[in-house]
Amino acid sequence: MSYARQMLDSYPRTFHVDAGVLATTIDALNDCAQACTADVDDDLSERNVSEMVRCIRLCMDCADICTATVRVTSRQTEYDSSVTRPLLQACVAACKSCGDECEQHAEMHQHCRACAEACRRCEQACRELMAAMR
Amino acid sequence: MSYARQMLDSYPRTFHVDAGVLATTIDALNDCAQACTADVDDDLSERNVSEMVRCIRLCMDCADICTATVRVTSRQTEYDSSVTRPLLQACVAACKSCGDECEQHAEMHQHCRACAEACRRCEQACRELMAAMR
Amino acid sequence: MSYARQMLDSYPRTFHVDAGVLATTIDALNDCAQACTADVDDDLSERNVSEMVRCIRLCMDCADICTATVRVTSRQTEYDSSVTRPLLQACVAACKSCGDECEQHAEMHQHCRACAEACRRCEQACRELMAAMR
Amino acid sequence: MSYARQMLDSYPRTFHVDAGVLATTIDALNDCAQACTADVDDDLSERNVSEMVRCIRLCMDCADICTATVRVTSRQTEYDSSVTRPLLQACVAACKSCGDECEQHAEMHQHCRACAEACRRCEQACRELMAAMR
Repeated sequence: MSYARQMLDSYPRTFHVDAGVLATTIDALNDCAQACTADVDDDLSERNVSEMVRCIRLCMDCADICTATVRVTSRQTEYDSSVTRPLLQACVAACKSCGDECEQHAEMHQHCRACAEACRRCEQACRELMAAMR
Repeated sequence: MSYARQMLDSYPRTFHVDAGVLATTIDALNDCAQACTADVDDDLSERNVSEMVRCIRLCMDCADICTATVRVTSRQTEYDSSVTRPLLQACVAACKSCGDECEQHAEMHQHCRACAEACRRCEQACRELMAAMR
Repeated sequence: MSYARQMLDSYPRTFHVDAGVLATTIDALNDCAQACTADVDDDLSERNVSEMVRCIRLCMDCADICTATVRVTSRQTEYDSSVTRPLLQACVAACKSCGDECEQHAEMHQHCRACAEACRRCEQACRELMAAMR
Repeated sequence: MSYARQMLDSYPRTFHVDAGVLATTIDALNDCAQACTADVDDDLSERNVSEMVRCIRLCMDCADICTATVRVTSRQTEYDSSVTRPLLQACVAACKSCGDECEQHAEMHQHCRACAEACRRCEQACRELMAAMR
């Protein structure tokens, strides 16, 4: 069981959303931030680094946005959907854009294939959390 | 002249947006992240900390979102408006919500008054950057 | 297999350290950042929040330091031990201090017990990475 | 007056260190994080990007470490020197390493010259804060 789920299970109050959906999203966000951070580094070590600049840029954006989103969604106390919802939408957009770019390099670079997968999973998880918040 | 402006002025390529508007937004985002981080700490040192929980939570969110937003907006290379625009919208929402909360404590706590001001300025700057991006 | 390990396995160059030790540390850092972020939120929802202020503060510090450390250690390219080593030492200190504090609340609060465990594991993992770097 | 100083001046308790030295350090850390984030982007837009890989990597590290350090040093409540001091040492090391690298590109790239200056100022400010903490 991930720490995300463990921590949610010991939260002293009631939740505003299904704990299973939330824990899955938190794990997907952390995975995606990690994959994007590592993919920037992998891209920088490739010989064709000048062709990877767009991938590097979008992975940096995606890592930063996932890191902010996982912190905000991990907070239950005094939950404010007017903040969480647009942030999840921004995170979906970042994962979509980064996943699309990484997919274009997936055949040549295994690290981009793994990163694209992490982006797709995170995008999907964020969409499911938004649906569960309704 | 701030480092934000200095760095923009030495950018090797052309911009996608007015450099003055962008530098003002970057400075406002850094100011707001700083004010919110400090306001969390100020709130934690108040005697009535249990009454400041909502303020603490929203300031943490706002600091995290401003930190991500300042990183993304500072990047010009391979600029992708499909990522930047929804993130700016999420940042506007966070600044609005945090500014509203801090304003309610502005008479009792000078630190909340200063933080509310930083949130209002940042919200306004993000709106102006979005307008300039059109 | 975690994304940390997957990404390391597709790194195009050779490593400066054992990939298994590094992947374990990266996972422990991400777990600890997650546990500390959630524990701040759990503490804020407790009735005795005024008694949890030191725990909140140290968990915020530990989350921030683990987040920086996981990013730096995830980077292999142009590795610079003069940066990585003191950062790992700072991270060990943060995990130690935060773990000690959380342990004091472990009997009363299950979330502090889980967070203390994540801190201890992360501290140990960072120490092992430093040893492997020699 | 910066928000760092404004927020310190409205802190409800007494400080553990001179407020002027602390505010100067906080401003220098925010400036350095900003300069390093922008310099990564500037480097990525240069034609000789493959020669800038080490600079990119060290600027990413320095931005991440400065961001963590400015958050931790901005917190006064329940101050713990066993965490703050090694983090400041790690930050000094990151600024030193990044400043040295940027300086090597200072003649060719104005953005690296500005970033080197921000790193030197931040390194010096962190050293002065450590001295003031004694």
